[in-house]
Amino acid sequence: MSNKRVFLFPEGNAQMRDLLGGKGANLAEMCNIGLPVPPGFTITTEVCNSYYADGGKLPTGLEEEMKAAIGTLEANLGKKFGDPNDPLLVSVRSGAKFSMPGMMDTILNLGLNGTALQGLIAGSGNERFAYDAFRRFISMFGDVVLDVSKEKFERLLTAMKKEKGAQLDTDLTAADLKALCGQFLALVSSETGRVFPEDPWEQLRLAVEAVFRSWQNERAIVYRRTEKIPDEIGTAVNVQAMVFGNLGDDCGTGVAFTRDPSTGENVLYGEYLMNAQGEDVVAGTRTPVPISELEKASPAVYNEFVEIGRRLEGHYLDMMDLEFTIEKGRLFMLQCRVGKRTGPAAVRMAVEMVEEGLIERETAIQRVTASHLDQLLHPRIDDVYIEDRHIQPVATGLAASPGAAVGKAVFDADTAEKLGSTGRKVILVREETNPDDVHGMLAAQGILTARGGKTSHAAVVARGFGIPCVAGCEELQVDVHDKCFHAGPVTVREGDWITVDGTTGAVYNIEVSLIPPDVSGTFGTLMSWCDGYRKLHVRANADNPRDAQQAIEFGAEGIGLCRTEHMFFEPDRLPIVRDMILAKNEGLREAALAKLEGVQMRDFEQIFETMEGLPVTIRLIDPPLHEFLPNFDDLLAQVTELRLASQMTEGKALKAILQEKEELLRAVESMREANPMMGLRGVRLSVIFPGIVEMQTRAILGAACKLAKGGRKVHPEIMIPLVGHVNELRVVQDRLESVAHAVMEEAGVTVPYLFGTMIEIPRAALTAGEIAEYAQFFSFGTNDLTQMTFGFSRDDAEGKFLRDYVEMKILPVNPFETIDRNGVGALMQTAVQDGRTARPNLKCGICGEHGGDPDSIQFCHELGLDYVSCSPFRVPIARLSAAQAVLREKVSVVLDK
Amino acid sequence: MSNKRVFLFPEGNAQMRDLLGGKGANLAEMCNIGLPVPPGFTITTEVCNSYYADGGKLPTGLEEEMKAAIGTLEANLGKKFGDPNDPLLVSVRSGAKFSMPGMMDTILNLGLNGTALQGLIAGSGNERFAYDAFRRFISMFGDVVLDVSKEKFERLLTAMKKEKGAQLDTDLTAADLKALCGQFLALVSSETGRVFPEDPWEQLRLAVEAVFRSWQNERAIVYRRTEKIPDEIGTAVNVQAMVFGNLGDDCGTGVAFTRDPSTGENVLYGEYLMNAQGEDVVAGTRTPVPISELEKASPAVYNEFVEIGRRLEGHYLDMMDLEFTIEKGRLFMLQCRVGKRTGPAAVRMAVEMVEEGLIERETAIQRVTASHLDQLLHPRIDDVYIEDRHIQPVATGLAASPGAAVGKAVFDADTAEKLGSTGRKVILVREETNPDDVHGMLAAQGILTARGGKTSHAAVVARGFGIPCVAGCEELQVDVHDKCFHAGPVTVREGDWITVDGTTGAVYNIEVSLIPPDVSGTFGTLMSWCDGYRKLHVRANADNPRDAQQAIEFGAEGIGLCRTEHMFFEPDRLPIVRDMILAKNEGLREAALAKLEGVQMRDFEQIFETMEGLPVTIRLIDPPLHEFLPNFDDLLAQVTELRLASQMTEGKALKAILQEKEELLRAVESMREANPMMGLRGVRLSVIFPGIVEMQTRAILGAACKLAKGGRKVHPEIMIPLVGHVNELRVVQDRLESVAHAVMEEAGVTVPYLFGTMIEIPRAALTAGEIAEYAQFFSFGTNDLTQMTFGFSRDDAEGKFLRDYVEMKILPVNPFETIDRNGVGALMQTAVQDGRTARPNLKCGICGEHGGDPDSIQFCHELGLDYVSCSPFRVPIARLSAAQAVLREKVSVVLDK
Repeated sequence: MSNKRVFLFPEGNAQMRDLLGGKGANLAEMCNIGLPVPPGFTITTEVCNSYYADGGKLPTGLEEEMKAAIGTLEANLGKKFGDPNDPLLVSVRSGAKFSMPGMMDTILNLGLNGTALQGLIAGSGNERFAYDAFRRFISMFGDVVLDVSKEKFERLLTAMKKEKGAQLDTDLTAADLKALCGQFLALVSSETGRVFPEDPWEQLRLAVEAVFRSWQNERAIVYRRTEKIPDEIGTAVNVQAMVFGNLGDDCGTGVAFTRDPSTGENVLYGEYLMNAQGEDVVAGTRTPVPISELEKASPAVYNEFVEIGRRLEGHYLDMMDLEFTIEKGRLFMLQCRVGKRTGPAAVRMAVEMVEEGLIERETAIQRVTASHLDQLLHPRIDDVYIEDRHIQPVATGLAASPGAAVGKAVFDADTAEKLGSTGRKVILVREETNPDDVHGMLAAQGILTARGGKTSHAAVVARGFGIPCVAGCEELQVDVHDKCFHAGPVTVREGDWITVDGTTGAVYNIEVSLIPPDVSGTFGTLMSWCDGYRKLHVRANADNPRDAQQAIEFGAEGIGLCRTEHMFFEPDRLPIVRDMILAKNEGLREAALAKLEGVQMRDFEQIFETMEGLPVTIRLIDPPLHEFLPNFDDLLAQVTELRLASQMTEGKALKAILQEKEELLRAVESMREANPMMGLRGVRLSVIFPGIVEMQTRAILGAACKLAKGGRKVHPEIMIPLVGHVNELRVVQDRLESVAHAVMEEAGVTVPYLFGTMIEIPRAALTAGEIAEYAQFFSFGTNDLTQMTFGFSRDDAEGKFLRDYVEMKILPVNPFETIDRNGVGALMQTAVQDGRTARPNLKCGICGEHGGDPDSIQFCHELGLDYVSCSPFRVPIARLSAAQAVLREKVSVVLDK
Repeated sequence: MSNKRVFLFPEGNAQMRDLLGGKGANLAEMCNIGLPVPPGFTITTEVCNSYYADGGKLPTGLEEEMKAAIGTLEANLGKKFGDPNDPLLVSVRSGAKFSMPGMMDTILNLGLNGTALQGLIAGSGNERFAYDAFRRFISMFGDVVLDVSKEKFERLLTAMKKEKGAQLDTDLTAADLKALCGQFLALVSSETGRVFPEDPWEQLRLAVEAVFRSWQNERAIVYRRTEKIPDEIGTAVNVQAMVFGNLGDDCGTGVAFTRDPSTGENVLYGEYLMNAQGEDVVAGTRTPVPISELEKASPAVYNEFVEIGRRLEGHYLDMMDLEFTIEKGRLFMLQCRVGKRTGPAAVRMAVEMVEEGLIERETAIQRVTASHLDQLLHPRIDDVYIEDRHIQPVATGLAASPGAAVGKAVFDADTAEKLGSTGRKVILVREETNPDDVHGMLAAQGILTARGGKTSHAAVVARGFGIPCVAGCEELQVDVHDKCFHAGPVTVREGDWITVDGTTGAVYNIEVSLIPPDVSGTFGTLMSWCDGYRKLHVRANADNPRDAQQAIEFGAEGIGLCRTEHMFFEPDRLPIVRDMILAKNEGLREAALAKLEGVQMRDFEQIFETMEGLPVTIRLIDPPLHEFLPNFDDLLAQVTELRLASQMTEGKALKAILQEKEELLRAVESMREANPMMGLRGVRLSVIFPGIVEMQTRAILGAACKLAKGGRKVHPEIMIPLVGHVNELRVVQDRLESVAHAVMEEAGVTVPYLFGTMIEIPRAALTAGEIAEYAQFFSFGTNDLTQMTFGFSRDDAEGKFLRDYVEMKILPVNPFETIDRNGVGALMQTAVQDGRTARPNLKCGICGEHGGDPDSIQFCHELGLDYVSCSPFRVPIARLSAAQAVLREKVSVVLDK
């Protein structure tokens, strides 16, 4: 800990945010560049940490430093702490490195007591103002420091207003407020058993401690967790001489942004209230007016403010969020910070600031975040609409597929399809979905399920088709029979409007206003700048021509993952797939395979056409076959019922149904697995039942040859999943190579193609050198690789313990969202190194969901992968993140020098 | 390929087994040390490989080399191939590097044809003998070379015997045999459409080709797979001048071992037949007499044979298996090889040969195998009993817990307990077992299940309690309702005798004779020699005092894995465990935990007492909690039935039962997991629900303190399973450390204890350096580590594809039996290295089932682990394997010099 604990504003600067917090550092900076800032000082974040380390004690010596700093303020302003004539009053505010608006506590007007009050009356010549300031101070101090509930003060105020027939606080007279101050002081005594502290120094010490304590209050902790702000950085405390916006009609207070934070337009944006203190603007008792009105009311002050805004933007090179107070016609700056902004605003400002010559392209790229872009790319909830109406979600589930959707609740796929196909907007609500629901899911605006994780059927299908989805919303009780769901006291019936937000997981039982995606001109400009920097190629995961088209539009340079089995799940194919699996003899099986071959070939043709000239990685069948069959539990219940029924009644039809269901049950049972994630799937299936992948290879090469004959360019990359031992790959690849040759020979044309494998089993990464002898490319399947490396079944872990793990900081982040560098990342690094040693031109990419996560993309860049692949809607984010990774590297190279 | 393809016996030696096969090399060796061997030559294994490489063609030049060799034989013996006066006849036999008795083909008396036959009659003066030789040759050659079914020749022989009223072959006259030869030749012509080849050279060429072909016959392939003999080494062919044991009563043939191969006793052991050819001894048509009879019948020959046996044992330094023929009073040696032996014999001979000064201790240790010891340690099927009666198993399942058991089949646990407790021998037969069956399993001699793998409930419990078990015997259809099972056409009902062999997986529907385990004096001597060499310590996996006692008796130096949850499964505890899991409030849960604490504390006290002074590693609870609850499917069926029933009848009792079952179903359902292997278990359970492990730690330290106060020494090592991230360990270990301190403080005594972790998650191995900052020991849980590293769920993989993988050679061995060095082994190596870098005195052991596998123990030795831990019955095997690992290292050091 450094020796200096207290910094007068002129002693700091904007770079000292770690020590002085954001607010303190920026106050110092404004002070140093000559802006009008009331004098004050900052107690460092280190004091906060020492306060906690010592079990809630301020360090010795701090009080002396504070006294010296107050002494400087007194000398500056010619006022004295507790002075009976013209007392110095101060504000005491928190201020951490990162802005946490409203999360911690603030005390205004500190220094007031019986004596100083008289001084304030004398100094201001305004008795009403002085009592107003005193009652505010007593209630704030009472609430924050002495733990007297804020509501109790409010109740006394309300009673007084009622007694006096006052509408607004401002309707109360000096006498009313004086009486109220008396009541407030009595309340404090009766609640705390002690007299309200009169000594300003005691007030200051207690207030500083209270601000430190507020760092660990419930809402601050939750906020930090959400915003990923570390707990151990602590807060600073800013003590500043009070200026008053409520001394009369030549006074006022307000907040403003140097540009419009919601659109990015280059105009001063904000609002203010005359004759008010800051809290009045926030409290909403009076309606603030737009900042533009100030130009008419006080043109000089307005122009000074505009000029200050311009100077600050030029100084900070960014859009600024400002707080100001006007005291008797004099402008004071109370705070400045880089302003928060919406996604569209972030992109527009970044691009326009480059065009204005304010910043470089590199800065612009680094200033836009993934979540900014995400807002642009999906319809989103209109936050203003929600806030204005104080709308709360009725339930919150997993954010399973991004974007918001509005529609009427329906509870079965057939109804969803029937209404959806006639243009009606519906949200399909299910306990959980299964392959039989897909036709209804495709017809819905959004999907809501009560069970299942982010890799549940609903989530995977929804993301695949770009449909917003909230999954695993466990608060819901779905009653399919009565076509309704309950969420706490709320019941939603078929036909009721609901809104689901797949970006946050929120569910509303009303029709919420949405903002459509906005891919405006500046978006394209920013993307093209990104493409100029990035080294990683960006591909998309696309399972059908529609997604492929979307991917192209978002700038994908190929398909990194085309999941052939998603085609199997489509409603017209599923019956054929089931026939194939349950076929009683080879003839029937081959007939079903032949039908599928035709269907798949047409799919591939269309995808190849869409992606012409770009590589298309097609993954051969991956999931266990039982995923294509009806659910075991449902069948078991049906068979049990049918058995009982057939014991009680005679009937051939019933017996026949029973027999059929029993047969199906036996088939499903024989394929059941204790741990299907680690069972008969992927390449294992292809080793044991080669028929399916041979069919798929014929369909892929057949489609490719057909297009090649028509003069089109096709680059299929055939990917064999779940390889753990080189011999699995060898056996299957050898077999499929001969299928490929046969198809090309028959077609009389050759197409360039590759065979490769996913690296998603730890053993594959550990033996990548052997595997690269066969595989021509690696694609990291980091979903499964994370599952196996941690031994976490994602479906089970996310619901049962992963959230707790992140909350308890056992894991820094959810490893299914961001690649775990130490474990999974170590395996990836081994695999890239050993793979490229064995085959120097080995193409390496990633196609797990991490391919769309910025931190993971950064890691992929560091690993030297050739490409990342993600869902079409994440492609722009990947382009951005890949460019940012290059720029970060540049920075660290500069720092290393 | 070397140029020389044919080696006369004097040109070879015993070291040339790769090239000449075992038989050829040993014939050469016997020849060189001056023993009476009929002259002959060997065609090399390289010729066999070239034969296959060329698509079934003998190399050019071979025929010339064979002719030259035959020429040498002719010169030696003064006979000529095909000679009408005294023809040279030869045998043509296979002979691979490793003995494959009876698997490939042999032809005797080759060289006979119409002309040579007359020569043989003339030379032997015995017409009957000559026709007998000819009919044997025709049928052998017909069968082996010309593919005429052996049965057809047999049928003609039987018809002839019937026609002539002959009991034995020897009752047929020369005329009968002559007629039979005619019939045989006619049969060959009619079956093959060609004349029986008369030219001896053509006979020889065809015979050599046939022997090569027999290398790839079905039974040879299967045998090699079972015995792990490589397919690519090929067989040699031995061509040797015939000598005849069937020329009269001064002739004979026999086989003998220099020591008793079943007990190891140092006596000549074998049998012979006078006036017979080798095949008659094997065929069983006449009963051979013990070799000791030869001493009376022909003392000179007997003494010469004894002397030869003594010389060969001295020369080969091992017990030898000999074949001999006596032709007109002259002894000829036809084969010698190191003799196969039972486990008890192997141990006794190894130790006695050291005592006789024949071999060194190191040789003795290397000569005994794990499966030899395994035979000593469990009751085993009496192979002679099986073979004599031609008994076949009715079904074969997985060898899930070693040893054989005999008892009456019972189909439910209660009956098993009822009968078992009155001393009746029962085998419990179930579709699969669950925790409700444990009381019946404990009362049974053996367990047989139709479903489940080697880690199924049945297998794990059986191994834990040392009960023989055959699991996953899918051929069985178990009908619990009718109390019977079907295996193909066989039906076994309750009360029928059956035998299960948990060492091989065989199931017999009769009472088979068993051989009890034999831990005789030489076993102890051998073990003590092993202990003098090995560096690895050997501990046992033991879950209860009985196993701990067994472990001590077998020489364990501690317990490496005590699975606390196995205690939970015992019938008196399971209801308490269920109460704990399903408790509706904290009070009830704590009451159940308190009951369990008392029970566990008594368990630990007894185990610590038994293991006094030795380390005891106790693993805290590992399985997911739903394993302790009833089966979901059963409950679902019950509830479905009850619902229907309650719809049809009124009845409060029924409704109450339904409600209770529904509640249980919901509880079980809420704990169900998609992939329980990777779900909420191990340390994850302890992070989320710390109550159970806190209770367990109190019980462990409580027991330890109690004993310590009584002056006993205890060394508990508390092991936290399934750690994947150091923070999981930190959180749980910190909590349990304070529990431990509290217990010791209360008891007023301290005991030495360690906290450590299993390394069974790939990420744990990859981040072992971090984990070793907390863990004081590592124990490799290679079962789970193999599952996660391969992404194989053992329960699913072993039944669905792992056997195919091994058969298809995708995997060299089942990685759950022998550690996969490249993948799992690489992780282990990383973990040991990084762990010991972080904590130099880190104790490292293994407690997965690999801890009892010889190849894996070898690997653990190479890794430098401190100990292996295995089931008590594998402890002697581990002691042996650990010593062998040291000796192998010595050999390779010598070779490196």
